[in-house]
Order: sequence, then C-alpha cells, then structure tokens
Amino acid sequence: MHIDESDARKRKRRTGRDVGTQQRDARKTATFYPDSHMLLMRYERISGEEACKIVKNGDTIGFSGFTPVGYPKVVPLKLAERKDIRVNVYTGASVGEEIDTALADMMDLRMPYMTNKVLREAINEGRVRFIDTRIGKFTEELQSGFYPEVDVAIVEACALKDDGFVPTTSVGAVPAFVSQAETVIIELNSEQPESLEGIHDIYLLPTAPRDPIPLKDPRDRIGKTFVSTANKEVFVVETEAKDSSRALAPPAEEHRKIAEHLISFFQKEVSSGRLPKNLLPLQSGVGNIANAVTEGLKSSGFEHLVFYTEVLQDCVLQLLRDNVADFVSATSISLSPQKLERFYGEIDELRQKLVLRPQDISNCPEIISRLGVISMNGALEADIYGNVNSTYIDGREIVNGIGGSEDFTSNAYISIFFSPSTKKNGAISFIVPMVSHVDHTEHDVDVIVTEQGVADLRGKEPEERAKEIIEKCAHPAYKEKLYEYLRGCEGGHIRMDRRKADEWYKNLKESGSMLGS
Amino acid sequence: MHIDESDARKRKRRTGRDVGTQQRDARKTATFYPDSHMLLMRYERISGEEACKIVKNGDTIGFSGFTPVGYPKVVPLKLAERKDIRVNVYTGASVGEEIDTALADMMDLRMPYMTNKVLREAINEGRVRFIDTRIGKFTEELQSGFYPEVDVAIVEACALKDDGFVPTTSVGAVPAFVSQAETVIIELNSEQPESLEGIHDIYLLPTAPRDPIPLKDPRDRIGKTFVSTANKEVFVVETEAKDSSRALAPPAEEHRKIAEHLISFFQKEVSSGRLPKNLLPLQSGVGNIANAVTEGLKSSGFEHLVFYTEVLQDCVLQLLRDNVADFVSATSISLSPQKLERFYGEIDELRQKLVLRPQDISNCPEIISRLGVISMNGALEADIYGNVNSTYIDGREIVNGIGGSEDFTSNAYISIFFSPSTKKNGAISFIVPMVSHVDHTEHDVDVIVTEQGVADLRGKEPEERAKEIIEKCAHPAYKEKLYEYLRGCEGGHIRMDRRKADEWYKNLKESGSMLGS
Repeated sequence: MHIDESDARKRKRRTGRDVGTQQRDARKTATFYPDSHMLLMRYERISGEEACKIVKNGDTIGFSGFTPVGYPKVVPLKLAERKDIRVNVYTGASVGEEIDTALADMMDLRMPYMTNKVLREAINEGRVRFIDTRIGKFTEELQSGFYPEVDVAIVEACALKDDGFVPTTSVGAVPAFVSQAETVIIELNSEQPESLEGIHDIYLLPTAPRDPIPLKDPRDRIGKTFVSTANKEVFVVETEAKDSSRALAPPAEEHRKIAEHLISFFQKEVSSGRLPKNLLPLQSGVGNIANAVTEGLKSSGFEHLVFYTEVLQDCVLQLLRDNVADFVSATSISLSPQKLERFYGEIDELRQKLVLRPQDISNCPEIISRLGVISMNGALEADIYGNVNSTYIDGREIVNGIGGSEDFTSNAYISIFFSPSTKKNGAISFIVPMVSHVDHTEHDVDVIVTEQGVADLRGKEPEERAKEIIEKCAHPAYKEKLYEYLRGCEGGHIRMDRRKADEWYKNLKESGSMLGS
Repeated sequence: MHIDESDARKRKRRTGRDVGTQQRDARKTATFYPDSHMLLMRYERISGEEACKIVKNGDTIGFSGFTPVGYPKVVPLKLAERKDIRVNVYTGASVGEEIDTALADMMDLRMPYMTNKVLREAINEGRVRFIDTRIGKFTEELQSGFYPEVDVAIVEACALKDDGFVPTTSVGAVPAFVSQAETVIIELNSEQPESLEGIHDIYLLPTAPRDPIPLKDPRDRIGKTFVSTANKEVFVVETEAKDSSRALAPPAEEHRKIAEHLISFFQKEVSSGRLPKNLLPLQSGVGNIANAVTEGLKSSGFEHLVFYTEVLQDCVLQLLRDNVADFVSATSISLSPQKLERFYGEIDELRQKLVLRPQDISNCPEIISRLGVISMNGALEADIYGNVNSTYIDGREIVNGIGGSEDFTSNAYISIFFSPSTKKNGAISFIVPMVSHVDHTEHDVDVIVTEQGVADLRGKEPEERAKEIIEKCAHPAYKEKLYEYLRGCEGGHIRMDRRKADEWYKNLKESGSMLGS
C-alpha cells in the first residue's frame, strides 16, 4: 500500500467540525500555572481509541519528541492496532518504542532521524522509506513544500493554555508540525509536571526570505512559553505515561582519556588567545561518549560555560548544578530516569538556567555561526584526510542518520569529532584510509580526538592532515598500516587508492578484523 | 626554505616609521570623487621596486583580487624578481598570472582558491602547500588565528580617501587582509576609473560571537564605500595596468539545453507555489556554463530577478540592462574585456543596481539562509545518490578548489548543480557510481541538471534518488551501465560497491573512456 502523495497533501477538515468553536471562549492572555482542569473544559476530550480514528490512510503525522523524551505514548500504541492504514511519520529526532517499534510496520515514510532497532532493520531492508535529513533544516524544507505536509500533529503536553499547550521535555519540530497540521491531538500527560511551563521558548521560524532571527545570546528568549493552536481543530487525550529515558553507561577509561585530550586542547586554545577563558558556547552530541566527555569538563577548571546544543544530558545538568556551566540552551532534556526525578524536584531553580527551543533554532546555521559555537560530535569513522562518516556502516547500512551534526559542524567556530580509536576489541579502526560514506567533508572538520590524542587539522593541507591524524589519533595497532597505505598511494594533492581502501572493509568482512588475517 | 610560522606571526613594524604621521593631516570626512591627486600628497609614494623590498622572507601577503579582476599587477611582478624570499599568498579567490604564475615558485602556502595552470601543477606536485578552504569562511578562520596572519596587504585601488582607499572591480577578502596587516601597499591604478566609487559596501565582519549581520535584502548597504587604513603603515604605488579578464565562450548547444531545463524547473516551482514569481535571490557560479545558463534567463519570461552571488559575469550584467534583473549583489565584477569597457561607460547608471561586498558577506551562511538564496553551481562529477565532487579529478588532482560552492549549497533554499552529462566526447560521464571526492554530501544537494534533464532529489530516499538521477540526467550511453551497477550492488539503505565504482576510473585510465573497451 503506497501512499498517494497528492492525496496526502490535500488540506482537509478531518471531522467536519467548525474549527474555532471549541476554543471560542478562550481568553487572550496566557498565564503561568493556569488551572489546567478549568482549561480542559474548553477542549474536546476524547479517548485514545477515538483519537487514533482521526488518522486516515496516507496521512502524515507529526509527533512531538526529540530523543526518547517528550513524545506521545498512548495514541501511537492505539494507532498501532489499526491494520487498515499506512502513514508517514515525522518526529523531531529519535523517539520511544511506542512510536518507532509499534508503528514500524505501518510506516511508508519516516523522517528525519531515528535510533530504533526494529525501524532501522525495516529501513535497511527497504520496507520503510527514510530520508536522512539535517535536523536543523528539516522544518524549513517541510514548510517549503519539499515533503508531504503534516495532516495531524500528535503532541505531548504538560499543561493547556487558552489557545495552545505547553510541551514537555522536548520541543523539537512541534511548532512547525502544529503550524502545518489542521488537526492537533494533545496527549495531556499527568506524569509530566506543569512546572515545566516557562522553560520553553517557542519561536516559529518563518521560511526564507525572513528578517534576522533576533537571538544574540544563548540566554535570549525570543518567543512564547507555549505552542499556539489557534485556528486548529484540537482534541485532548488525558494520559499518564513515563518517557522511556535511558540510563547512561558510566564513562569508560578511553572516554575519560578523550575528555582529557579535549580539555588540554581547549586550554591551549585559551592560552594562545584563540578562545576566551570560558570558551565559546558548546554543542555536545548525544550518547554515552558525549556524556562522558562533558563530565570531564567538571574538574577541568573551566567556569561560566554556556551550552548552545541539541540535547541536555545528565552531565550537562550536573555542570549547571555545580556552577561550572551558567546556562544551557537545547531542544530536549534527555535524562536518565533517576536524574529526571531529581530534575523535576529542582525545576523551579533550574528554570532560570536553561531554555528549550525548537530544533530549527537550536540547530540554526544563522545562530550557530553568529554565536561561534564549538561543536563536539561522535562519529562512526574518520579518514586520514578528515572526512567523517556519521551515518552508514560500510557505506550501506544506516545507523541513525546525520541528525544535527552537519548543522553544527559546517557552521561551528571550531568543529570537533571524537571516538575511541578502535571498536569491537580492535577489530575496527576509527581512522580509515577512506570513509565509506561522507557526511562531513574535509573542508568542515577542524579537530579529531581519540583516546590516543588530538589531531588539529586547521591550517594543514591534505598530506599534513594525514600525518597528523595517523600520528595523533590512530590506534598503535593501525598506525603502520595507515602509513603504509599513504606511502603506497598515487597522488596528486590528495593521495588515495580506492581498491586498497576497500581492502580494510574486505578484511573486516572476511577475517573479522580490519587488520586482516 | 620553509617558513617558520612563529616568525611570520610576529607583529612587527616593517619600516620603523611612526605609523600615523603619513596621514596626520587627513580630514575625517570622506566625500565621493575627491581630488585623488591632492589626497595622494598625503601618502608616501614609492616605486614598485621599493614596494617589493618591504616584503620579508616568510611573510604572508594578502592580495586583493577575486577572479582575475581587482588584483595588484605591478608589485607582484617586481616581487617575482626577488629570488631571496619565500612567502605565503592569500587572495580572495583566483587572480591573474601576475600573481599566480609569477610567484608560484616563491610560494610556501597558497589560500584559499586558484585557477592558474602553473600554480595548479606546483600544488599537485607538492611544491606549493594549498589548503582548500571555503571562501566564505576563510576570513573568519584567518581572523580567528587558524592560519598565519597577514603581514602585508597589497591591494589595487581606483581612488584614495583621507584614511583609506576605494577598491576596484572586486572586494574579496581585502577588508580582512587590511584589518590584519600592519603595512598596506596600495596600487593606485589609473586604468581603473574613480567612478567605481560608490559600488562597494565595505563591512568588516566581526569574529563570533557577534550581533546579527544587519543585511535583510540584497539591496541593503551596511558598510562604507571605502576600505579604512587608519593606523596602518600605508604606501602608494602609482600604476596603470589592465585586469586580465577573460572572454567567455559563446553558449554551446548543451549549455542552452541545461538552461532550458533549469528554467522549466523554476517555472514548475512557481506554478506549484514553492517559489515566488520572481524566484528568490539567485547565486550563479563562475565560468562559461554558468554564464550560458544565466543567459537563458533572458528570454525566460522571468522579471524582477535579484542576484545574491559571488561574481557578476557578462550575462548577469546583460540581465540588468534588459530589466530582467533588478539588482545584483556580488563580490566581483568579472567581465570579458569588451563588456568591461561598456560597463565603465555605463557605471553611473548601473551603480544603483549593483553592490560589491566582501566575500565573507557575499558568501555568508547567515545571509544566504536568511534570504533563501537559490544556488546554481557547476561541478566535476555527481554520483547516483547526489554526492557532488567540485575539486578533485579522480580524487587526486586538484582543479581549483571548493571556492564558494559549499557556502551557498549547504545554506541554500534550493541547491542546484549542473554540468553536461559527458565530457571529452563522451569519455567521461558526469554521473558516476561514486564520486571520487565528496565536496557536497547527499544531504545538501537538491537538484541536478544536465542537458538530458532535471533530477529533483527533494523528498527522495537513496534508491529513488539513484533512479531519478540515472533516468533524468545520465547520458544515454551511460544509462544502462549505471542501472547495471545499481542492480549489482549490495545494500542496505544505500547500495554501493567500491570496487565496481573504481572500475569506471580504471576504464578511463586504461582505455580512455569510462565505458571501457
């Protein structure tokens, strides 16, 4: 059952109701901590079963959620019981199993990012179409008509407003989805405290051409504290369900070493006058290593750090508490279950130190270049010239998608990638002759860090970069093999050999290690 | 003789003079069309021989010039006679033979872009270091201390001001070079009319973090009409020498077809409501094909076009004259000799319709994304998934460099690449299984155009992109070979085979054609 795009694009009233009557009595002013119960009376309350019937075959659904937090959890599971429809699914980034596992068999198109195992398999086997798109550009491309339009937005909220709702632990693409959808289904989740109100800064990015985005400092607020649903057909489903947030692994020894190298790099940049004492706004990728690297900053001596990033993870929150960091701007608060409980308890205090923005603002090229953000992201592999692969194993099997890494990398003041120098007990080298897929070109990658050291690629031409990367970042077991490759290549300004580069992957396949047998 | 970077970086008074005395009597206000002869008296005039002695071994020279226009022509030739020094050479982009041929043997490092045959050979043979850098990010990276600092700026001017000079037919990186240099050598070229004054908009981009750049429309002026030399040691060399501008080839039949396809694409976008009637600001690459494509717009029915681009070439100027285009913002006016003469004659009329900006503003991600620029660039090769190679032949031999293509492509509203589908009488296919070097990733390339047709990659996943590109853009002689490759590949979300992809280059090398024997 393939979706007819032209059908999906037809803007249609889904229930034939006169949009607006539901909110006719709405007051015009919004206040913090409203009586949600009173406001609830103004909305049409429906059950999860009723909600999922609103979705039609071929629809494009925009779900809230960015990393497995802030996404609706009840309606998607009900929707999964319907066997009669196929849908397109948009989210901010990855979401929980209630969407990506439960709906995988019903998806025609999925965008822009995912981390779910079941869905990944479906994508790699060609059962679900997946367009790997920059998180920061996704909403603008959507609004520009490059992809099927959102028919129904299904979003999680912690509170209702007269003419809208307060998102929960992520903002992601919600403002864009709601703005495009005719129908909005709000999952009002009583597990999410109303006290989250006030941490969001909802600014609807206009499509270009537009005026300058008025954000000059990561602390600036340029929008509202809630998402407007004016002129939408709105339904409310009352739920109680927890985010499927993940516990993070404790930092491994090699992660600690990466953090140490990174911190010495920053210290050198400060002492040479290339960075201010409190650095520049930091972006830090998502996951265990990113979390470990951030933890390293705790005892680094740096103070008054500011983050302009996608996702606030455990360690960044701890930096706020320890007064190492002054402020965090993100689009998602993705904490381990334990840390989330503590966060809810401290929210009144922390609200002054953090803001959650839409992903097209957290990942906005205009803002990132203006603020001079330092980007720090993990990667699958990097090659000796500084090209980086973030998405595809052996160039073929997608892992998660490019996510926000390019938004930051190509506009960063200094762009950094890090990874352990080997994976799978040394079988896979992070540094390879040629990456099997290029997501970040040599033009955009400034610094590479492994537990072995820091390769500073700035001001270096290809041959110099190759030597710097091999010498500083490659694992000792792979160093000579990489030098040998370099010596054996023909060039040119760049020396390379596709066949010899391919042997590394061939070795891995045939003997279980890139080193060969 | 390798340059000791730390030496080159020492900020030193080059001549021991008390900087400032030369301009002590300078009035504070600048006026248009000043009496340059009177102002000249206030500057220290020297000969070309004297000027070149100011340069020391290991110096980094920032030359004006962007495409072979607006660069100094006398001092570099004198400098070439010195056999006792090696220097680093920065420019805006490509410049004339007086720099890139004459100084090639003396260069240690060359940045950020070049098109010169002699220099290209020196770079590919490893005799000159070349860091292939984005034109739009070069000056900020320079000011951030990533590269050796400029010691001496050598610039061409058409007029002097009390505290500065008026550039000629390009701006390029001049403001950044002059701001960093202690010593400025001005070639006051009487071949360049003083009436050029008023077309430049000189805004010195502050390094990040910075305020929003206040440019909201391609027509906006945000800076001064001249480059300030306040507090610099300034020397003036009076010259008369013409730019080595190039005549463009008349559009070939296949270029006309590319233009036709592009125009139908634009017409479709307008009729579907995805673009306004006068499109969005256009960027057009440099060279014969770009010129031909632009010429196609003349009889397209489009009106009130606006260009926000790097280089104004012959055809864009003609669009201004014909009232097809309303306004052009660029960093360089690169006309064929004949057109340049005519331009000089009409300059008073045209001054209201064009502005020359520094390259960090013409190519600025913040502005490009804000204005919603449509980028149109040529390329060496594109692969079936939409990755584009702009720089390296067979991944090894550099041609020119990435230039401004990434600045525009990764921030464009719609990014377009074009090329004839084959080169060298069909021996080389523009569409290949895997590009031999990636400058623009699949995430950033929206549309590919050849004389065969238009591949619209938006909203398509890898397999769909591959079929679209092969079907619409590949030359008939290569179509079945590409389909065969695609069918024979293993995948994954992406199906690819490095060895089979390599055979195309092997064929070319061994049999003279990618088709093989």
